[in-house]
Amino acid sequence: MTSDLHLDTGEVALLTDLYQLTMAASYLEHGFNEPACFSLSVRRLPPRRGYLVAAGTERFFEAVEALRFDAQALEYLESLKLFKPQFLDYLSRFRFTGAIRAMPEGAIFFAEEPILEVDAPMIEAQMLETLAINQVGVATMIASKAARCYHAAAGRRLIEFGLRRCHGADAGLVAARSSYLAGFNGTANVLAGKRYGIPVYGTMAHSYVMAHDRERDAFADFVRSFPKLSTLLVDTYDTLKGTENAAQVALELKPSGAELIGVRLDSGDLGDLSKRARKTLDARGLGQTSIFASGNLDEYAIAELVRGKAPIDAFGVGTAMVTSADAPSLDLTYKLVEYKGRPRVKTSRNKLTLPGRKQVFRAWSRAGAPYRDLIGLVEESPATVAREFKPTPDRVTELLVARMRGGARIEPNPTLAQARELFLEGFAKLDSPLKALERPELYKVRYTAALGAMQVAEKLKVAERQR
Amino acid sequence: MTSDLHLDTGEVALLTDLYQLTMAASYLEHGFNEPACFSLSVRRLPPRRGYLVAAGTERFFEAVEALRFDAQALEYLESLKLFKPQFLDYLSRFRFTGAIRAMPEGAIFFAEEPILEVDAPMIEAQMLETLAINQVGVATMIASKAARCYHAAAGRRLIEFGLRRCHGADAGLVAARSSYLAGFNGTANVLAGKRYGIPVYGTMAHSYVMAHDRERDAFADFVRSFPKLSTLLVDTYDTLKGTENAAQVALELKPSGAELIGVRLDSGDLGDLSKRARKTLDARGLGQTSIFASGNLDEYAIAELVRGKAPIDAFGVGTAMVTSADAPSLDLTYKLVEYKGRPRVKTSRNKLTLPGRKQVFRAWSRAGAPYRDLIGLVEESPATVAREFKPTPDRVTELLVARMRGGARIEPNPTLAQARELFLEGFAKLDSPLKALERPELYKVRYTAALGAMQVAEKLKVAERQR
Repeated sequence: MTSDLHLDTGEVALLTDLYQLTMAASYLEHGFNEPACFSLSVRRLPPRRGYLVAAGTERFFEAVEALRFDAQALEYLESLKLFKPQFLDYLSRFRFTGAIRAMPEGAIFFAEEPILEVDAPMIEAQMLETLAINQVGVATMIASKAARCYHAAAGRRLIEFGLRRCHGADAGLVAARSSYLAGFNGTANVLAGKRYGIPVYGTMAHSYVMAHDRERDAFADFVRSFPKLSTLLVDTYDTLKGTENAAQVALELKPSGAELIGVRLDSGDLGDLSKRARKTLDARGLGQTSIFASGNLDEYAIAELVRGKAPIDAFGVGTAMVTSADAPSLDLTYKLVEYKGRPRVKTSRNKLTLPGRKQVFRAWSRAGAPYRDLIGLVEESPATVAREFKPTPDRVTELLVARMRGGARIEPNPTLAQARELFLEGFAKLDSPLKALERPELYKVRYTAALGAMQVAEKLKVAERQR
Repeated sequence: MTSDLHLDTGEVALLTDLYQLTMAASYLEHGFNEPACFSLSVRRLPPRRGYLVAAGTERFFEAVEALRFDAQALEYLESLKLFKPQFLDYLSRFRFTGAIRAMPEGAIFFAEEPILEVDAPMIEAQMLETLAINQVGVATMIASKAARCYHAAAGRRLIEFGLRRCHGADAGLVAARSSYLAGFNGTANVLAGKRYGIPVYGTMAHSYVMAHDRERDAFADFVRSFPKLSTLLVDTYDTLKGTENAAQVALELKPSGAELIGVRLDSGDLGDLSKRARKTLDARGLGQTSIFASGNLDEYAIAELVRGKAPIDAFGVGTAMVTSADAPSLDLTYKLVEYKGRPRVKTSRNKLTLPGRKQVFRAWSRAGAPYRDLIGLVEESPATVAREFKPTPDRVTELLVARMRGGARIEPNPTLAQARELFLEGFAKLDSPLKALERPELYKVRYTAALGAMQVAEKLKVAERQR
């Protein structure tokens, strides 16, 4: 038995906009299938964001590798009476054969910088657009929001708690994966635990307490079931009485070997309640029992609690982070930048794009911090670009690396743990003012002289051609 | 070959919060598995919303019917070293055996009203929580946002264009389905077309134009490929010149039988550009060619264009609608309302819940408009509740109907087309002030005397018991 949450392999190929297929059909018909390059980038940073965290590319590559049109997909497309047999035949043999250069997951990046570039025959490259934006967009958006929470928590633990508020099943997996990548310690999402090896955590719901006649009975039952792993939710009726009840149960069951891991506060003034709960627990000799806080938390609320020295050991973060509530989409575009070896731009009002196959060069200070990026052309190198940075950099690195070739991922595939390491290291090096939650300092991103010149030249050529 | 976008049946069972499983294990161990009732409702309406549109329940029911823990799922759970063999054994035989009463998809509803109620043994009912909120939440949120666009468009056609900005694969399907349900005419999402029979539409992307040396060549190629179905994107370089080019191509290819269906404007001042494009087309005898507008549209922008009499025939709506950008989550809760035949409430600060198994009664005026709802108990009936409405209603209807029994859906399963009809009919009857985009009039929802009395009584009992 299956359900609508299930996606067959052939269905992923149809998870696209119809125009990708009509354009592909027209390209095929008119012999437009020479090498093309498309570039995926964020046009501008969302409000209050000083940086973004790359995520979602590895899941995207995996889906691209597997992309096939199966018999059912072809049958449906035929039923639309839009497509000629030659095109359906082409689709039946379709597979991605191109190359992709991409930033590693966990990389910190900025507006206009390509997250990835696809080099492939026109039709194949065009057909990846919708899936690329759909997958990389949500994953990067959530990783970037999670990084802000990680920064605000200043070393306290963070658990992703938002599966129920995620936009569907797939978003639930993405939220757990992206937040773990960006410094969270675990998730409540069991499937994400299974798929990605993310540590899973859980406490209890109000309904568990409500199902029992007395809160204390609920707590005792739960601690008996999980003597070493109980975190008790104490706010179903009254947070402080609940904490008292939890403490009493912990003391009563101590002789049987039970330990109360924590109490969870899920409503009210978390700063004040956590201080009072801490006192209650300490007074009962439960100094080891930690305080877990949840309930409408985001980076701002976490920062406020940390500033107020709330004795909270771990935060459960849900809705605001998993939906990136203050910026629930990324302005991600997938633009044709080269066709048949010739650069391409789009010039419509306020939307001049960056032509050419590109690389992102990052300058590092002697102190080991990145201080400026130059978006350049793929033919340029750190050595040639170094002199365009001022002050002279200690070293220049390239952000885009080859990740797919001939339609297959280039081994070894980085693990989620490696991506998380990369994020943690990179984030630690980033200057503090760039990480500010409000009005972050703007990181400087410019174009290399070569790219700038190409953009000007291409704009003129377009004006010439369209006359 | 499969990908991470694929969900196996056994995986859907793990798409849950860990605490659902730890609570279930504890319930099983302590014999807490008597009949329970949980109620799914929205605590308060999002900002500026005057109503919500029920959606996502049928997909949820389908997933619930199929819910199983397979060998891999059990193996993973065992590896967590949290659960005893008895519980894993229980899960290996798990299937939902309960009943669900729900509003039909497409129903208009309000805060606090149960969208659905689950009647099942405690463990089964509890285990549906995360999936219920995850699925019904996003679907209802998007349907409700789409209904606002439908209202604003005042009869003009609407196409869902947002797959790339949806939060992942599943959200893409939900967005297409929910928006069609709430009055949209189609989607660009091909998979949604295949799955749900939603009409699919597409135009072309800027890259198609950019791949050609001249815009006019691109247009001619496309019209030759789709002589009866071309909508040309005219704003890659300059919208009005683009419209001229489209018109010329249409006239040149007319002798070959080609017809230009439409032009699409995707940037700039859509009101002004649409008027000038209309003039250009009309002057060329292309009065039948329609104007399609897209680009950062939401209900407010659509209303503004309609007010300004922009000659736009159809709107493509994406990001703002599919992410419900101004309210990207619903405050949906799944609360225990009865256990072992006894009502339950949660009383923590500002969060007194509604106890008991419920029904929603709606009063209709003689003119055929709904004017007030009473949330009551399932034992009450329209006849007994009628006298509590003032003025006396022409008729009283019940919103919750039986949809699952013994773990299976009750046939016939309504189709998406039927749900859309239900929405369109219900929405037409709703008083205009309730539909206002800003400061909508508040529809009156109260409790029946019986429910009100039960809530007070239960609150006192809780206080008594916790003392």
